[in-house]
Amino acid sequence: MRASVLRDGRMVLRDDVADPVPGPGQVLVAVKACGICGSDLHFAQHGATVLELGAQLQGAPLGGAPLDLSADVFLGHEFSAEVLEAGPDTDAPAPGTVVTSVPVLLSGNGVEPIFSSNTTIGGYAERMLLSAPLLLPVPNGLDPRHAALTEPVAVGLHAVNRSAIAPGEAALVVGCGPIGVAIIAALRHRGVEQIVASDFSAKRRELAQTVGAHRTVDPAQESPFDTVAPAVVFEAVGAPGIINDVLRRAPARTRLVVAGVCMEADTVLPFFAAAKEIAIQFVFAYDPAEFAESLRAIAEGAIDVAPLITGEVALDAVGAAFDDLAHPDQHCKILVTP
Amino acid sequence: MRASVLRDGRMVLRDDVADPVPGPGQVLVAVKACGICGSDLHFAQHGATVLELGAQLQGAPLGGAPLDLSADVFLGHEFSAEVLEAGPDTDAPAPGTVVTSVPVLLSGNGVEPIFSSNTTIGGYAERMLLSAPLLLPVPNGLDPRHAALTEPVAVGLHAVNRSAIAPGEAALVVGCGPIGVAIIAALRHRGVEQIVASDFSAKRRELAQTVGAHRTVDPAQESPFDTVAPAVVFEAVGAPGIINDVLRRAPARTRLVVAGVCMEADTVLPFFAAAKEIAIQFVFAYDPAEFAESLRAIAEGAIDVAPLITGEVALDAVGAAFDDLAHPDQHCKILVTP
Repeated sequence: MRASVLRDGRMVLRDDVADPVPGPGQVLVAVKACGICGSDLHFAQHGATVLELGAQLQGAPLGGAPLDLSADVFLGHEFSAEVLEAGPDTDAPAPGTVVTSVPVLLSGNGVEPIFSSNTTIGGYAERMLLSAPLLLPVPNGLDPRHAALTEPVAVGLHAVNRSAIAPGEAALVVGCGPIGVAIIAALRHRGVEQIVASDFSAKRRELAQTVGAHRTVDPAQESPFDTVAPAVVFEAVGAPGIINDVLRRAPARTRLVVAGVCMEADTVLPFFAAAKEIAIQFVFAYDPAEFAESLRAIAEGAIDVAPLITGEVALDAVGAAFDDLAHPDQHCKILVTP
Repeated sequence: MRASVLRDGRMVLRDDVADPVPGPGQVLVAVKACGICGSDLHFAQHGATVLELGAQLQGAPLGGAPLDLSADVFLGHEFSAEVLEAGPDTDAPAPGTVVTSVPVLLSGNGVEPIFSSNTTIGGYAERMLLSAPLLLPVPNGLDPRHAALTEPVAVGLHAVNRSAIAPGEAALVVGCGPIGVAIIAALRHRGVEQIVASDFSAKRRELAQTVGAHRTVDPAQESPFDTVAPAVVFEAVGAPGIINDVLRRAPARTRLVVAGVCMEADTVLPFFAAAKEIAIQFVFAYDPAEFAESLRAIAEGAIDVAPLITGEVALDAVGAAFDDLAHPDQHCKILVTP
């Protein structure tokens, strides 16, 4: 079958990938759509750094089999798919059912994240394996392309949940890429009444407004902190310098939720945070309940993900799409539809 | 009267300071004891940096009159004192009453922190002004030297309160200087059942144990994270590199409370914090209720501050005491007793 794989830092099309065979508890599915995530782009460019940092990390290994960057790597963790065939002794939805799932594959060998792997096929492929107990049927005849956005929406919802923001508290979202807009949508979903969003890109500010920001700010023109005194700031840029800028400018006792994943070293002045007793909550991923709630919110129309989809490509164009996403002004989410 | 003042980075004795005159709502007091705080030492060495960072800080100005480092600066904010004379129309405890107070002076000009000022006299002086509404009489005939430790104990209690630690959760205190041991004492006071303390200094580890640590670790010998999987880590060092080390080694979902005030730039790898969803709460000072509770706990014997006092000097030896405190192995808290 065909799959787009990471090889020497580029996504290339292969047509000789062996069809995976579902084991007990697993299901073979046909991918309907898979979103390209910023973390895929980052891994393609800086995979070695990611692995090196992961190896230094103590206290909570990221899990998964060891990864060999000199071999092909399967990516793609924001997917919807159609059930083809269940493994032996496996209860699964009927073939033809459209499903999504948290990107985790359960097997006899344990738990394997479906994120970057030499062996576990991700969503940039015609077919892949999923775990029967984790499958969520896509309800309400929801467009499978929209269902593929369950994952990034769950990231936003999780960030908002971890912030414990109350509807009457003001939120500032710094950065209106896919994570930022997912956070804005989730804030709106939670009834937050004052959402200010900041981005240098006019197109991204427009999208922020479409998904629910009450006001947008171009930081080249004015500091967002001149517009709003937020109780919670969501950092959704993931670049060095942003955290320190927030620490310096934010009001006392701000809760800063860091949702952008900066893989580089970053410099802060702890004094700024100390003098104002700022709390920084780093967030990552989501739990299964948040994933299910995200799917429900999309299917019921409570969160409209259609505006986030700015492109759609076939498997042979994944490499070009990765290049396109390097220009953040042009795109939010590109879907791969195999 | 006599006072030790900061002049060109050194504490020098003056005998020509004019006695302050209490205004309405103020009280003239004779200082009984004043603890030397790490922030005093830091201000003496790096006052210009502190002022520069303070000027950059937005969202919560630190308050107080502008400070001129080329003029004498009064320091000393951990004091107990004896009431001498109330200002006009001022309700105050009777002369002779031993009191302490949060280090804030209320006046017609507003609120002035008693921390570092060209005009508001601090605790390194024979006499100073305090605010009648803020005075707390020292109960139970408590030694005024012990009452002077109300302030640092309140810093520890506040850090513990902000951590929301439960008695069954494990705490790791990194750094057993005055702030670290105050945190340990407060953790013990809150009934926390597993307190591990880490410091390179054997003397400080011994003090940590005296005030309530259940176990101490020499980080030169072993990582404290090999001994305990803390729910809450208290950073009480305030030097660059510590926060990142905790982010790298701590368990997932650790709450890191940063109580050490690092005035230098610090470098972190946000990825470590993101992958483990670590929360960082920066803390600073305390509220008046925590200050009052600290005095009560000391007076009732619930927190024993006697072991913290490792030296006592007169006003003419404040400069030498500042020098001594540069060697952290020798001292915890030195009291100035004018």
